[in-house]
Amino acid sequence: MIIVIQCADQVGLVAAISSVVSKQQLNIISMREYVDKAENLFFMRLEVEEIIDPIQLEHQLKSVLPTDATIHINPIPHKKIAVLVTKEYHCLADILIRNFFNTLGATVQCVIGNHDDLRDVCERFGIQFYHVSHEEKSKDEFEKQIEALIQPYAPDYLVLAKFMRILSPAFVAEYPMRVINIHHSFLPAFIGANPYRKAYERGVKLIGATAHFVSNELDEGPIIAQQTIPVNHSFTVPDMVNAGKEIETSVLARALKLVFEDRVFVYNNKTVVFE
Amino acid sequence: MIIVIQCADQVGLVAAISSVVSKQQLNIISMREYVDKAENLFFMRLEVEEIIDPIQLEHQLKSVLPTDATIHINPIPHKKIAVLVTKEYHCLADILIRNFFNTLGATVQCVIGNHDDLRDVCERFGIQFYHVSHEEKSKDEFEKQIEALIQPYAPDYLVLAKFMRILSPAFVAEYPMRVINIHHSFLPAFIGANPYRKAYERGVKLIGATAHFVSNELDEGPIIAQQTIPVNHSFTVPDMVNAGKEIETSVLARALKLVFEDRVFVYNNKTVVFE
Amino acid sequence: MIIVIQCADQVGLVAAISSVVSKQQLNIISMREYVDKAENLFFMRLEVEEIIDPIQLEHQLKSVLPTDATIHINPIPHKKIAVLVTKEYHCLADILIRNFFNTLGATVQCVIGNHDDLRDVCERFGIQFYHVSHEEKSKDEFEKQIEALIQPYAPDYLVLAKFMRILSPAFVAEYPMRVINIHHSFLPAFIGANPYRKAYERGVKLIGATAHFVSNELDEGPIIAQQTIPVNHSFTVPDMVNAGKEIETSVLARALKLVFEDRVFVYNNKTVVFE
Amino acid sequence: MIIVIQCADQVGLVAAISSVVSKQQLNIISMREYVDKAENLFFMRLEVEEIIDPIQLEHQLKSVLPTDATIHINPIPHKKIAVLVTKEYHCLADILIRNFFNTLGATVQCVIGNHDDLRDVCERFGIQFYHVSHEEKSKDEFEKQIEALIQPYAPDYLVLAKFMRILSPAFVAEYPMRVINIHHSFLPAFIGANPYRKAYERGVKLIGATAHFVSNELDEGPIIAQQTIPVNHSFTVPDMVNAGKEIETSVLARALKLVFEDRVFVYNNKTVVFE
Repeated sequence: MIIVIQCADQVGLVAAISSVVSKQQLNIISMREYVDKAENLFFMRLEVEEIIDPIQLEHQLKSVLPTDATIHINPIPHKKIAVLVTKEYHCLADILIRNFFNTLGATVQCVIGNHDDLRDVCERFGIQFYHVSHEEKSKDEFEKQIEALIQPYAPDYLVLAKFMRILSPAFVAEYPMRVINIHHSFLPAFIGANPYRKAYERGVKLIGATAHFVSNELDEGPIIAQQTIPVNHSFTVPDMVNAGKEIETSVLARALKLVFEDRVFVYNNKTVVFE
Repeated sequence: MIIVIQCADQVGLVAAISSVVSKQQLNIISMREYVDKAENLFFMRLEVEEIIDPIQLEHQLKSVLPTDATIHINPIPHKKIAVLVTKEYHCLADILIRNFFNTLGATVQCVIGNHDDLRDVCERFGIQFYHVSHEEKSKDEFEKQIEALIQPYAPDYLVLAKFMRILSPAFVAEYPMRVINIHHSFLPAFIGANPYRKAYERGVKLIGATAHFVSNELDEGPIIAQQTIPVNHSFTVPDMVNAGKEIETSVLARALKLVFEDRVFVYNNKTVVFE
Repeated sequence: MIIVIQCADQVGLVAAISSVVSKQQLNIISMREYVDKAENLFFMRLEVEEIIDPIQLEHQLKSVLPTDATIHINPIPHKKIAVLVTKEYHCLADILIRNFFNTLGATVQCVIGNHDDLRDVCERFGIQFYHVSHEEKSKDEFEKQIEALIQPYAPDYLVLAKFMRILSPAFVAEYPMRVINIHHSFLPAFIGANPYRKAYERGVKLIGATAHFVSNELDEGPIIAQQTIPVNHSFTVPDMVNAGKEIETSVLARALKLVFEDRVFVYNNKTVVFE
Repeated sequence: MIIVIQCADQVGLVAAISSVVSKQQLNIISMREYVDKAENLFFMRLEVEEIIDPIQLEHQLKSVLPTDATIHINPIPHKKIAVLVTKEYHCLADILIRNFFNTLGATVQCVIGNHDDLRDVCERFGIQFYHVSHEEKSKDEFEKQIEALIQPYAPDYLVLAKFMRILSPAFVAEYPMRVINIHHSFLPAFIGANPYRKAYERGVKLIGATAHFVSNELDEGPIIAQQTIPVNHSFTVPDMVNAGKEIETSVLARALKLVFEDRVFVYNNKTVVFE
């Protein structure tokens, strides 16, 4: 069972929380805490062996915590997700494979593509695929169609697995800090379209990938995970694209694992990640 | 102030310890804990802003901890070290530079070399250098001479900064888990002499370095830090030696920092490292 | 078109080869050469834009090269492979996905498992899966059955994608330097079974994966690619197994790409890899 | 002896060059070539065992190369450098140590600081240190003073080893592609002042360092080498600064080695690096 707490910092929080936990005779598997001194914020993630009534435990924790505390208790961690894609298969396929073998830590409910290219791979795994073209319609219409398809599933998270359309602030606002994107550069470098082209032109010796929550500013949302790999002068733009696919796949997989295990807190457009 | 605790695990330890700390109105800067479930062992490192009387705090902690608990309170962390070298300069020079600019987290008291090559660089930094040749004497005599030179300094740790002689169990026993060595391979691969030669012959695509405490078994002591870098077919043995120097220097520097900041626990020939 | 040459070294080889190539008005896309001075061996890989008659080109190259030269000209590089598996899905699934989207650089002809667990994922991609149990039969019988299934396909390479049985020297001899294995450690550390258990017990701060050609000595064949990732004291054996899967998948994928693109030479139980 | 060639690409260049080399009975230790197809540019670096008359060899090479070819023959590679610093010691100390032990591949002629802090460490190694304050004078005066001190040494390269002043285009123009800077971020992210502060505020999970030639645009010159290391939410700005020092030191050291060994070509604000 996972217990996640965020509140204003004060002396004695760890003592108070761990005292509640030990009175319940709960065995702590892992405990991670962090205090942002500048912001006076306290973050804690507890994993205990036992599964007990979350309502009662939350009540006990509330009684010892500041009134602003947010407490989230996850008895059986398992999330539901919808995946948005365009044409590139690598991130989606990795998610489908982990989903199929029950190692994703979440269930893929459906996949929506603004092109039809990835229907086949989804259907081979029995995953519902919807094609919603962005062509010959306004962005508003396009997003309304997506929204109508997603809503019945009530997913916990939307995963943009190389979805190449920019979602409107209105759409994103429906899923605050619940839309996860993989961007194919080490942000904040090369924001926006064609980062590998820009990387090539700048002559960088690294390329990277960044998984982040989507906010209203393009590629400016809270970063969950990022990684780089070396490149050299011999890499053409297509070479960078290909090399980048490997790292995009692995960074997104790592970010999803962290989010699905309730290891990621968001505040001030940044994340606390208890790896 | 740093507080370090190791004891048998039981429910409520975190609550008990943090309760003692919060009663003293101590602000926790960082708290790290780990439980080895298989061995039923509990480890904790606390860093608090305030400096208070360590004897009184230890007394209070003892009253809430199992009787087997070892408690170590470090009011002003600063270690004293003696460095043993042979001919290679890179690890020693890095230590001397950090020592000179007060960023080592320890004070170099003296350097002992079984060759005289590194006297000059030591003396340029005002560090006492002793030449103790291993030639034309028994290992026992050799080590007795070293021991006689070191003892007056009463160093906390001996650092073997590319010291190419194997110390006897008797010598090592004088400094249990207080002798730190840098080995030029990713242990347990390539134990003993000429690891780069062996790496070359095996055709590995990685070379590495391992910092470890010295025990009675050659290169078998508890590992503190290790790292690898890629190599390829074009690397000759000397190329590997040169590339390896960079990583040896940085792995030893990192291990020393971890040890000097009381972040390393040893048990069962393994380490817990709170990075 | 790819041209691969290996022969005894002598002055003027590059001039002689490149003169043949330029007389044909071939545009060199990339040229890589390496000389092992100790062994007096010359290796070259040339990639040219044009596709011309390989027999004529080979004839011209032979006329300027030492008589011991092996020349391999690959007009349309595309290999055929059979994959052997046990129960773990991660390496196989990665291969199946790349095969399905035509980015593997080879065609998967069939998959053979000594357990039946991975039949489903293969069949979803229309790949023939054969179950050959190793139980209640001799190793010889087991291997004869595998051999009988593989032979009609005449694969260029056998890929052991987490195949947990040790193949006999007689079997391996049928496919000299054509069987590629992924071993779940940074060889030569932790040869044989249960490397993660051994890594855990040794307390290493790294785990790794090694892709290598299979020879008659267990885990002693020529290494193609290897990589490590950091671990710490909090990793249990299952944690290492899980973390290791990511790196096993990516190291095997990289090694296969290198082999399928004719970038790997083998000699003296080592490889030259022109990345 | 190192031979470096850059020219317009055409069929037969490798044959022509290697034919000249083999006629001289020169043993090639290593040969690297690269063609930028988009720009139709050819780059080659040859290392041969023998040292012969460079003027004669250059003459022979010119006779087989396009007229635009630049040929650079380096019989005994050894560069001269002046180092500019401010207050931070880590990059300078690393350079001084390598210089002292003759492993820098260059000779440090003098060090100039706009603060006096690093005089002591220079003088301990017998290196001339000049203090040129930037205070109470115009940038032009400041740079004229530096220039007057440097000119008598006629250095091949100026190394900005954490020199925190921006040099004017006029100054830089005196040393075209001969001023090497280390910037404490993974460019093009966090150009200009306080990159660690910006990295902290953006909440990145990586920090980095970039060594580049200085051009007229701030932090926009051709990149020679760059690297990143992971950080997490617990890193304060000073923590990032400290962690960054390690990587700044090693990236600058690597870049200098590459430049001093004539492995770096510059064109189109990018570099070709034959590592």
